[in-house]
Amino acid sequence: MSSSLVFTDSSTSTASQPSLFIPQTTHKSGGEACAKVIDGKMVAKQIRDEIAAEVLKMKEAVGVVPGLAVILVGDRKDSATYVRNKKKACESVGINSFEVRLPEDSTEQEVIKFISEFNNDPSVHGILVQLPLPSHMDEQNVLNAVDIVKDVDGFHPLNIGRLAMRGRDPLFVPCTPKGCIELLHRYAVEIKGKRAVVIGRSNIVGMPAALLLQREDATVSIVHSRTKNPEEIVKHADIIISAVGQPNMVRGSWLKPGAVVIDVGINPVEDAKSPRGYKLVGDVCYEEACKVASAVTPVPGGVGPMTIAMLLSNTLSSAKRIHNFQ
Amino acid sequence: MSSSLVFTDSSTSTASQPSLFIPQTTHKSGGEACAKVIDGKMVAKQIRDEIAAEVLKMKEAVGVVPGLAVILVGDRKDSATYVRNKKKACESVGINSFEVRLPEDSTEQEVIKFISEFNNDPSVHGILVQLPLPSHMDEQNVLNAVDIVKDVDGFHPLNIGRLAMRGRDPLFVPCTPKGCIELLHRYAVEIKGKRAVVIGRSNIVGMPAALLLQREDATVSIVHSRTKNPEEIVKHADIIISAVGQPNMVRGSWLKPGAVVIDVGINPVEDAKSPRGYKLVGDVCYEEACKVASAVTPVPGGVGPMTIAMLLSNTLSSAKRIHNFQ
Repeated sequence: MSSSLVFTDSSTSTASQPSLFIPQTTHKSGGEACAKVIDGKMVAKQIRDEIAAEVLKMKEAVGVVPGLAVILVGDRKDSATYVRNKKKACESVGINSFEVRLPEDSTEQEVIKFISEFNNDPSVHGILVQLPLPSHMDEQNVLNAVDIVKDVDGFHPLNIGRLAMRGRDPLFVPCTPKGCIELLHRYAVEIKGKRAVVIGRSNIVGMPAALLLQREDATVSIVHSRTKNPEEIVKHADIIISAVGQPNMVRGSWLKPGAVVIDVGINPVEDAKSPRGYKLVGDVCYEEACKVASAVTPVPGGVGPMTIAMLLSNTLSSAKRIHNFQ
Repeated sequence: MSSSLVFTDSSTSTASQPSLFIPQTTHKSGGEACAKVIDGKMVAKQIRDEIAAEVLKMKEAVGVVPGLAVILVGDRKDSATYVRNKKKACESVGINSFEVRLPEDSTEQEVIKFISEFNNDPSVHGILVQLPLPSHMDEQNVLNAVDIVKDVDGFHPLNIGRLAMRGRDPLFVPCTPKGCIELLHRYAVEIKGKRAVVIGRSNIVGMPAALLLQREDATVSIVHSRTKNPEEIVKHADIIISAVGQPNMVRGSWLKPGAVVIDVGINPVEDAKSPRGYKLVGDVCYEEACKVASAVTPVPGGVGPMTIAMLLSNTLSSAKRIHNFQ
């Protein structure tokens, strides 16, 4: 499908002036419509390059290097992988990374002690507690210990409240929904006045994605597990952001022709052909969506790479704000 | 229209067990469908009676009387009327009311000084700054001075964030949208799984109303000034909450037969027949809505009286929480 992608890497592109990739429905020789692939991997790379340039500029101008601290508690392999990826991503753009690994049986107080130290450390501009925490800890207590000016995850209720309110601005926008909107911007998808449907209402993706779309003047509907006939609502959407974790739940027949689909789901499904025995698919049936939509994110390689890019972006913004650097 | 209202004033009714008024579409002798009138004035009266009983119970059990402090700055006649009505409502249920009137040319610091005193005053459980403030004051600065545990208006971003998040609870829900949902509850309108449309996205009504409906498992769409063809979206709604301030904007033809309409708009329109020269109408064309909807709030006498009732309810809840009284 990616053969139809036209990548316009505008030379004027900067972090504040996103390049434009204009999605168009093209046609295969067989006459079948084929959606543009929204290439999150490529956009994330572009954003990392932009961030690297800004980090360098800041270092040269004011001698400050942005820093991200990550706290990992316990031995979960997946969490260790995520933390390693975040560290590597920091290195790739010149952001300092700090890491604390604590044993599974640490106390809440011990974790909070490290958070407090990072709160007071001027070389740290973002603090991230890798979730999930061991079950004996109160997640809310631990997360609430992170100073809101360093809460680069953007999950603090004060941030969410500001995101919801007109005339207020959050300090940070949660990374995954921010990545979804950034993809729409970079692909020049108009949001204002469009009908948008968000599938899923989680605190970390669906809900903030809906608030972000509304801030950009979309008319937003939120579909969730209690929604009757979700396909009827999705069918009217110009823009769909799906974040439910149900493999291939959204079928081609649910989509309005020409819709733009941002698929946040990353769902493992059995695959005998894969050496791992499984493959990753989205919430949206990709093959079917490609025949109806004007643009679709693939899984993997769509929203996934954007999340870490937005974490780096939030860390850079935080350092700029703390040091009053434009 | 109110002739069709069946008011079931259940004797078991308490604040936690609302009475049930089941809306049904009835038919006039002419065969024309006629919606139930959702009588906000009557429900507000019922709620005030419930609150009065709870206030008395609390006073007898722990010797505490809930207190509401209102700060009025300047000489606006409408603001003075609102403050007077709030004071009267407090008296009617046995809540203590405290009032500070400051001259128009007061400084922000003077207003904040009084807020601080109320923050520290154990006989005050709710603090309300009457808006609008004089133009030389920063509204956000002043409102942010109110201690969140006494912010009975519920407009603090931390409250709004908690309202938006699953698994979190706000300390207070803003009074007008809380009143809308309370009307739905008292009239036994099922919300879970229903399609709901909120018209308007203000911080004080539309946005929190949408969040409240979503918390109750409705599938919510938010229509606003940038929405194209709002009638197409409204047409699918089982429940409509309108808060835009446009007289008679929503026509009968916009409504799904049997929909329930909560009209927050209170709009003055010229009326030569009225001694005042104007009358008040809602956002929804009432006469038309009555022929299509199953239940409608009138204007006046619908949502309006509920707002002050919910302010009293928030003040009582605050006193209960502060004194750990169930």
